[in-house]
Amino acid sequence: MSIFGAMPHQNRHTLNNGISVDCVILGFDFEKLQVLLIERDSDSDDQASRYALPGDLIYDDENLNQAAHRVLKELTGLENIFLEQSHAHGDVERTKRESDQKWLESVRDEPSLRVITVAYYSLVNINAFKPSPSNFAKSVVWKPLGEIEDLAFDHFEILTQARRTLQAKIKLKPIGFNLLPEKFTLSQLHKLYESILGRELDKRNFRRKMMKLDIVERLDEKQIGVPHKPSNFYKFNIENYQKLIEEGYDNFGF
Amino acid sequence: MSIFGAMPHQNRHTLNNGISVDCVILGFDFEKLQVLLIERDSDSDDQASRYALPGDLIYDDENLNQAAHRVLKELTGLENIFLEQSHAHGDVERTKRESDQKWLESVRDEPSLRVITVAYYSLVNINAFKPSPSNFAKSVVWKPLGEIEDLAFDHFEILTQARRTLQAKIKLKPIGFNLLPEKFTLSQLHKLYESILGRELDKRNFRRKMMKLDIVERLDEKQIGVPHKPSNFYKFNIENYQKLIEEGYDNFGF
Repeated sequence: MSIFGAMPHQNRHTLNNGISVDCVILGFDFEKLQVLLIERDSDSDDQASRYALPGDLIYDDENLNQAAHRVLKELTGLENIFLEQSHAHGDVERTKRESDQKWLESVRDEPSLRVITVAYYSLVNINAFKPSPSNFAKSVVWKPLGEIEDLAFDHFEILTQARRTLQAKIKLKPIGFNLLPEKFTLSQLHKLYESILGRELDKRNFRRKMMKLDIVERLDEKQIGVPHKPSNFYKFNIENYQKLIEEGYDNFGF
Repeated sequence: MSIFGAMPHQNRHTLNNGISVDCVILGFDFEKLQVLLIERDSDSDDQASRYALPGDLIYDDENLNQAAHRVLKELTGLENIFLEQSHAHGDVERTKRESDQKWLESVRDEPSLRVITVAYYSLVNINAFKPSPSNFAKSVVWKPLGEIEDLAFDHFEILTQARRTLQAKIKLKPIGFNLLPEKFTLSQLHKLYESILGRELDKRNFRRKMMKLDIVERLDEKQIGVPHKPSNFYKFNIENYQKLIEEGYDNFGF
């Protein structure tokens, strides 16, 4: 091969040792929100150091958005999703925990260097892709948001902050519809909103407001084979939604 | 002085050459929004390179919030204000413009190094402090937001993004009251909201909604010496506002 030919991947880029990106990927299993985590070390008894958000250092020839998409794909196989920036995290001690330092020593050239991280988040349909771990991810798992008490580094704080960003966002735009299947019941939509907002919502008010917004459309089709009275299916009315957004409508709070 | 005595300021810290903070400080002169800018080089004909947001590299022993407060104080004298993070900006070419490079060469050890910046924003009462330039700020000026077409680096983009963050924020919380004097007219409040949202708001709807929210209180006092029918003064009702926020109320959109 000519010396002008393709170079191995790792030689094309220089790592920026001081900046990383981390991705908070949330999915919905029709009951509760789940977070996509990578398992770094399956032998560890320390639950916090065992699981982390998918994240890594950025390259010096990519911007933050590009880095977030690349890192997510490299660690979990997930691609072509809409990532939005949540928050930059820069506490001086954020990577200094002993169990994290041990892990950093095994994967980084400069494990003790301070790293500032920029967090991204996304809502995805949990059934739309099959995670496939690679790079330093031993496995990729969905964990119920409510069961997570700690994570590697400051990732629990990053997760909490991303959730706050999302809670503010969903009041201005109805952003959760891609977490549901094409046809869904109003109960599923109601549960989705409750899990994102982290509090109970009055069922009747919720339905009334959704109907008034006119962004869901009742289908002539019911659930089959359920152990309760079958509910009607609905679908998202994208045209009406687009019209509302174009008109500057922004009150989707409940 | 003992060798254990106080060291000069610049020796206590190590600069992180890859991370900076920038501050978008907005004030209101009762007519329009103004942005606080530092003048870097008063001889320059290039308007973009002449004015910048107050910003600088962070030290390795401070977090991002601390850096934002320190840098703002060092360059403009402004302190004790509520700064909130807006967005991290990391385009590969963001400091590469020729006019900016020239300036960086005069103040930085490594002028060609890539710098990622984390933007903060705040709304302040334009009359509550007198800016005093120091460090590399030749002067500190308020510029009307609408008259700014470009700034140093990607600061115009940072300003635009911070404005977007603020526009989303003000729909969830009525955050502009500290830009007004203690007693204000409803016209002033209306103009403030219009300048933040960047669009006209129907005056009657605006007043009706404000009254319904019950967060402004009519005072038994009118304007004096104005060339039109004097308007009534109002004040912000902090107790009612706190109550609304505690109840989780979040619909302050117009």
